Amino acid sequence: MFIKQIARVVGVFALLSAMCAHAQFAKPEDAIKYRKAAMTIMNTHFARIAAMAQGKIPFDAKVAQDNEEVFATVSKLPWSAFGEGTDKGDTKAKAEIWSDQAKFKAAQDKLLAESLKLNAAVKTGKLDDLNVAFKGVGAACKGCHDGFKDK
Amino acid sequence: MFIKQIARVVGVFALLSAMCAHAQFAKPEDAIKYRKAAMTIMNTHFARIAAMAQGKIPFDAKVAQDNEEVFATVSKLPWSAFGEGTDKGDTKAKAEIWSDQAKFKAAQDKLLAESLKLNAAVKTGKLDDLNVAFKGVGAACKGCHDGFKDK
Repeated sequence: MFIKQIARVVGVFALLSAMCAHAQFAKPEDAIKYRKAAMTIMNTHFARIAAMAQGKIPFDAKVAQDNEEVFATVSKLPWSAFGEGTDKGDTKAKAEIWSDQAKFKAAQDKLLAESLKLNAAVKTGKLDDLNVAFKGVGAACKGCHDGFKDK
Repeated sequence: MFIKQIARVVGVFALLSAMCAHAQFAKPEDAIKYRKAAMTIMNTHFARIAAMAQGKIPFDAKVAQDNEEVFATVSKLPWSAFGEGTDKGDTKAKAEIWSDQAKFKAAQDKLLAESLKLNAAVKTGKLDDLNVAFKGVGAACKGCHDGFKDK
């Protein structure tokens, strides 16, 4: 009986939480536009870090930090915009995002963990550290895109 | 003679600086896509703050702070993406951005100043403060769009 009550309360919270996530965007196309915008910003700033790590542009510790700061903030944003009803429309998102939510969540967590390592790396100001950490983030990006984004 | 040398050095720095700004984007369309993405993120998070300030959704000081944090970071981004050659293409940017750069810069500075006030307002956790500050930011957005963005 008590277990049932808890289950009911948890269920209501889950429903409210899902409703709130949905309510952040007036229309599904707004959510799709938003998450694509966040990915554009992430991609731009990560590419600058990658170019430095790979020696394509001169390494500048301050510039690396500035780019990482933007990447860290914006890489937290897209995930709230994969709510119900946002699987159709102008998007390359695969159905697996919704059919295997635990795996999609794990891919997000992987990115955030690698992003924290990147943050630590840019703070040391050493190119070698950046070179290791940027590969971790790049692998997290690729891993998620391979599984959850159409080509 | 000395003045001329200084002028020459300043000129070279200005040129290098402009070249670096341009070099941040491989193609003009990349810069346009990037600045529009930043505006999408800014608009989404500012709209949530505005909805709270206007009583359309319940006021939550923590949520206001989280949204302001994203807004503060991303509102610094679009301006580097209005370099030379980015006046044509898939953009509503007016020619005045390039013909009256001082005025465009002043409009950016106005936004950043109002954004700092918004930052101070969300930290007090008072709805009245938020209500004043969000109007300042909104006016800065509108002022810049009126002068520099086609309808």
